[in-house]
Amino acid sequence: MYVTQGLHRAAQQKPNAVATIFQGRKRTFAELTARVARLAGALRGLGVKAGDRVCMLSLNSDRYLEYYLAVYWAGGAVNPANIRWTAGEIAYSLDDCETAILIVDDTFKAMAQGLKENCKTLRVLIHAGDGEPPAGMLSYEGLIADSAPVEDAYRSGNDLAGVFYTGGTTGFPKGVMLSHINLASNCLAILAAGVVTTDSVGLHAAPMFHLADGAFMNALLAAGGTHVMIPSFTPVGVMQAIQSEQASASLLVPTMIQMLADHPEIGAYQIDSLKSVIYGASPISEAVLDRAMKALPSATFCQAYGMTELSPVATLLLPKYHLPEQRSLGKMRSAGTACTLAEVRIVDPEGKEVPRGTVGEVAVRGPGVMLGYWNKPAETAAAVRAGWMHTGDGGRMDEDGFVFIVDRIKDMIVTGGENVYSIEVENAVLKHPAVAQCAVIGIPDEQWGELVHASVVLKPAAQTTPDSIIEHCKVLIANYKCPRSVAFLEALPLSGAGKILKNKLREPFWKDKQRNVA
Amino acid sequence: MYVTQGLHRAAQQKPNAVATIFQGRKRTFAELTARVARLAGALRGLGVKAGDRVCMLSLNSDRYLEYYLAVYWAGGAVNPANIRWTAGEIAYSLDDCETAILIVDDTFKAMAQGLKENCKTLRVLIHAGDGEPPAGMLSYEGLIADSAPVEDAYRSGNDLAGVFYTGGTTGFPKGVMLSHINLASNCLAILAAGVVTTDSVGLHAAPMFHLADGAFMNALLAAGGTHVMIPSFTPVGVMQAIQSEQASASLLVPTMIQMLADHPEIGAYQIDSLKSVIYGASPISEAVLDRAMKALPSATFCQAYGMTELSPVATLLLPKYHLPEQRSLGKMRSAGTACTLAEVRIVDPEGKEVPRGTVGEVAVRGPGVMLGYWNKPAETAAAVRAGWMHTGDGGRMDEDGFVFIVDRIKDMIVTGGENVYSIEVENAVLKHPAVAQCAVIGIPDEQWGELVHASVVLKPAAQTTPDSIIEHCKVLIANYKCPRSVAFLEALPLSGAGKILKNKLREPFWKDKQRNVA
Repeated sequence: MYVTQGLHRAAQQKPNAVATIFQGRKRTFAELTARVARLAGALRGLGVKAGDRVCMLSLNSDRYLEYYLAVYWAGGAVNPANIRWTAGEIAYSLDDCETAILIVDDTFKAMAQGLKENCKTLRVLIHAGDGEPPAGMLSYEGLIADSAPVEDAYRSGNDLAGVFYTGGTTGFPKGVMLSHINLASNCLAILAAGVVTTDSVGLHAAPMFHLADGAFMNALLAAGGTHVMIPSFTPVGVMQAIQSEQASASLLVPTMIQMLADHPEIGAYQIDSLKSVIYGASPISEAVLDRAMKALPSATFCQAYGMTELSPVATLLLPKYHLPEQRSLGKMRSAGTACTLAEVRIVDPEGKEVPRGTVGEVAVRGPGVMLGYWNKPAETAAAVRAGWMHTGDGGRMDEDGFVFIVDRIKDMIVTGGENVYSIEVENAVLKHPAVAQCAVIGIPDEQWGELVHASVVLKPAAQTTPDSIIEHCKVLIANYKCPRSVAFLEALPLSGAGKILKNKLREPFWKDKQRNVA
Repeated sequence: MYVTQGLHRAAQQKPNAVATIFQGRKRTFAELTARVARLAGALRGLGVKAGDRVCMLSLNSDRYLEYYLAVYWAGGAVNPANIRWTAGEIAYSLDDCETAILIVDDTFKAMAQGLKENCKTLRVLIHAGDGEPPAGMLSYEGLIADSAPVEDAYRSGNDLAGVFYTGGTTGFPKGVMLSHINLASNCLAILAAGVVTTDSVGLHAAPMFHLADGAFMNALLAAGGTHVMIPSFTPVGVMQAIQSEQASASLLVPTMIQMLADHPEIGAYQIDSLKSVIYGASPISEAVLDRAMKALPSATFCQAYGMTELSPVATLLLPKYHLPEQRSLGKMRSAGTACTLAEVRIVDPEGKEVPRGTVGEVAVRGPGVMLGYWNKPAETAAAVRAGWMHTGDGGRMDEDGFVFIVDRIKDMIVTGGENVYSIEVENAVLKHPAVAQCAVIGIPDEQWGELVHASVVLKPAAQTTPDSIIEHCKVLIANYKCPRSVAFLEALPLSGAGKILKNKLREPFWKDKQRNVA
């Protein structure tokens, strides 16, 4: 199994079908294949040998897909850079896995110059833009025009496909080594769920460096569908792209879905081609889902849960569980069930499976489990034990195998000796009619250890008070779980993947204190 | 990846759902898992170690599925016996791969006694029936009752999962060694095509020893659907099972579909639960498809092409190409396109890909390609070259990647220097209103080398003459392709998998002569 297979199949079966659409530029699978084979030739000419890392630092574009495919085709390994990171963090990752070549777009070309000066292993900068390349950079288009196509290296199975950096929120980033079988097999569950098919027109609105969109991209590749890219997520950008390209499927995080559903102009766009929304990073609240189903009536919703170390999907909550008639089952609060090819268990600290309903650590086994962390054998051994990836997520499993993520184990709030899972509080707050987004954290308190604190973004033009929100919660959840304080923010701090950065919210409260976490 | 994973998932996610239905006997996934774990314990107690072969010789039943799963669970490798073979042929296969344990049903228990006497390696007979076991045999149910459950051996990846004997039609049978990744990955294309889902109730009417039904079984297992078995195919048995168990999917060969569609009592059964028919072994003629779509209006049709050495699926012709509005595309004569995870090429004798439209040998690469032939390294090396399985099937590929199997290379008829592909002639004959089934072969002729000869089974109560059939063909195909002679038979000789045995039809014509084939 290898990641470029979908490209080969599409080139064989639908060479004249549209493969990529970016800002009006369309290329067929025959054209994409030819460009990938030439770019791979250029990379080999620049010295890329089996498993050598090549980085891309860029907003989304059709070239981002070409980058992935050409690096695999050349026999190298991708190292896609997190666009939210600082130059220092990116430099660390480039040096850590000895990356010699960096492909950069116009947005990041200034940062790239600095990286070249500060990174020990970086030798070559390639400018993936339409104009003349800046001094000291090679031209991406020039390389494609001037290089002879090469044969696919057909790296496969356990061969290294990429090093994906993760974990910026705690300590130093770790490079997750994923193989071709990791990536090529993992996305098959998305195909088995029927949410991506060969007729899909998939919209890449979430950042393409991240494996959330990566899983969607790999599934769409395996199916042979069309890829539409927008540079980065904006509600209007998504609506315009759906309307103009008749996009039928997209990977969006719940925050994006909420911003889309609540956008005042959504009625002005023709977006009923959208049939399938896959979301990840967190469950969707019923309140947001209701608004989204009203705003996007043509779409089904499917949740994927996982992590980079799992390539990334471990469980799926299929569309049917999002329908109003199924909600009473209570499954919508879950992350779904183990997907095809993944085994999921809830285990105790000794790795033994706990009884159903008991909270423990989510552990996953299967062909998606990473090769390991780059140059970190001790961390790898701690995370992957007897083939089981220990996710660090706390969860429980019900009698039907549905996994309920209660929280990152370290994110649980302990107040007055009671455990409070922030997601439960967030779900309550989000039902308040004025609330658009919410993140709940524990803040230090002399008496109670921690207090429950809610950071809230209101809907446009909505008004309310902290008391109104707290009283609203008391009807829905136990008193000790209700927020003791509420802060109104313009926006929540988000990671490059669209995850809410709770560490940033905690910072002002905890800066001189030590959180007592496992 | 490993074959028992679907069982583990279903036991986790739907323990109380029905897993198997056989002659009114229903068992849940929890019950099936418990029986499999105990039967695996019994097999280990009988000495089964990693990779040891265990044979089953039996008509279809719920126990056939238990056999597969328990052998994998114990860590052994299956060796399912072809029920159409003679005792001599089966004895050869048992000795060839050193099988020590044979599980046998009431239908074959007499044959099993003889096998025990004649096979060098066979030590243990297990009687998979409901009554007392015959003398010298262990009781299957007794073993399950008396054995402690064991943990799944979790053999996976390239570990040997089974030895599947094939090729009885030419020379000695060959044992095809398939791994867990071969079997577990191959069936995912069926899931990606959406023809089997977790809600499917799958009917095993084709023989379960054969990998045609095996691929369907593995896909249904991976999806977590329900398995309904009937002992063997009869049109009435299929109709009764669909009606009583609300079966929604089945693997049937075209001959079975024809017998079902033409059955006079089909209107008397409630069979509109049937949504999905997967067929293999040969393309379906338009005439038979038209009758089948009329007789089974609720069902879609999906063709799978492959061979045991490919675990077995290589291409799929998706349901949409069977619809009347798509027929004008001409794709229905094809075997479809390379399925997810399979690469397909048409190659010349040197293994080089030929231009589209040119007839060559169908070659396939991917995770389905067998480990090799048991104890036959030379034959393995001849068949699998640089990872490509050379199928021995002649075919061409059109501009859209559709593979048209023209014939087994050795089955092509050469008459007066012209190549005639029997399938083209058969398609013409099958359009005659009186014809139910047809097989076309070459028979020896002094003047022309070979003459085209048609063996025909008429529809019930239909009458016609050889001349009528020949004149009918002249309107449809070139004169040199038309049959020169027609024989009317009661039935065509079929293999255990439902393939028409052309060798049996050729025998009387060729017995003293040498066919001049590649």
